[in-house]
Amino acid sequence: MFKLKIIVVDKTRSVFLKQGESFYLGRLRHYATTEWIEVKPAKIRKGTPTQNILAVEGKSISKRFLPHDYIISLDVNGKHYDSEGFAGKIQKLSITQERITFVVGGPLGLSPEVLKGTHESLSLSRFTLTHEMSRLLLLEQLYRAFTIINNEKYHK
Amino acid sequence: MFKLKIIVVDKTRSVFLKQGESFYLGRLRHYATTEWIEVKPAKIRKGTPTQNILAVEGKSISKRFLPHDYIISLDVNGKHYDSEGFAGKIQKLSITQERITFVVGGPLGLSPEVLKGTHESLSLSRFTLTHEMSRLLLLEQLYRAFTIINNEKYHK
Repeated sequence: MFKLKIIVVDKTRSVFLKQGESFYLGRLRHYATTEWIEVKPAKIRKGTPTQNILAVEGKSISKRFLPHDYIISLDVNGKHYDSEGFAGKIQKLSITQERITFVVGGPLGLSPEVLKGTHESLSLSRFTLTHEMSRLLLLEQLYRAFTIINNEKYHK
Repeated sequence: MFKLKIIVVDKTRSVFLKQGESFYLGRLRHYATTEWIEVKPAKIRKGTPTQNILAVEGKSISKRFLPHDYIISLDVNGKHYDSEGFAGKIQKLSITQERITFVVGGPLGLSPEVLKGTHESLSLSRFTLTHEMSRLLLLEQLYRAFTIINNEKYHK
């Protein structure tokens, strides 16, 4: 079975988004072994520079990378796909890669170090989304990708 | 207070998305008088052509339009905005228009007649989204737009 890993910063606070995550994680696990990893957010004191926060969180994220992970980070400057294109991408990677690891940053995004270690960056929308909303959208699109790959019907 | 109307097809079936809608509708109502209208979906029998379904739903939608509504329909071929651009658009319309009416179709989308009667079309993402997910994303972006217009902080 294909392997997915999704690394996010912090727990999901919104109750309905957490339910949505569970819903799509459950569906996704029919198609891929899916690890969901929540790393601790950096403690923010008043005046802590953004770069320090991102550096701390970036280290926690990088620790969860394994040698053969193909890493895709969510980033506003990343590539835009439509659902068919994204499914095609996932299908190709499922042949050549051992595991695809997605990284979703916290409210401030991802450190330059994490982005440098990333194989590619993905943007979900031109709109700014909360990091929690991004998780839901990513899970939904991953699930949709597998239904496309498997030629299954999925309600629009 | 500024007037918003959001017309959607059918009730929201997903429990967590319905909770999300209520959450953002509640927040949105701090900034705008917001009507949420669910029109009945067309009855689908096996073999009913898509155009017939859309025509029936389109009539129910058009009945809810008022003479001075500025109509924005969600459509895959619509315009893409970033959150700041969308907020700028809403701000401009709030000065010149009496009411902005958003239309979100059902699983099959919107009829050509509704799209023809539309002042502009909006695409939320290049990804295909369920029509229920589109509602949540639209509400979240409308709420975000008002926080941007009012220079308020909104967690990313």
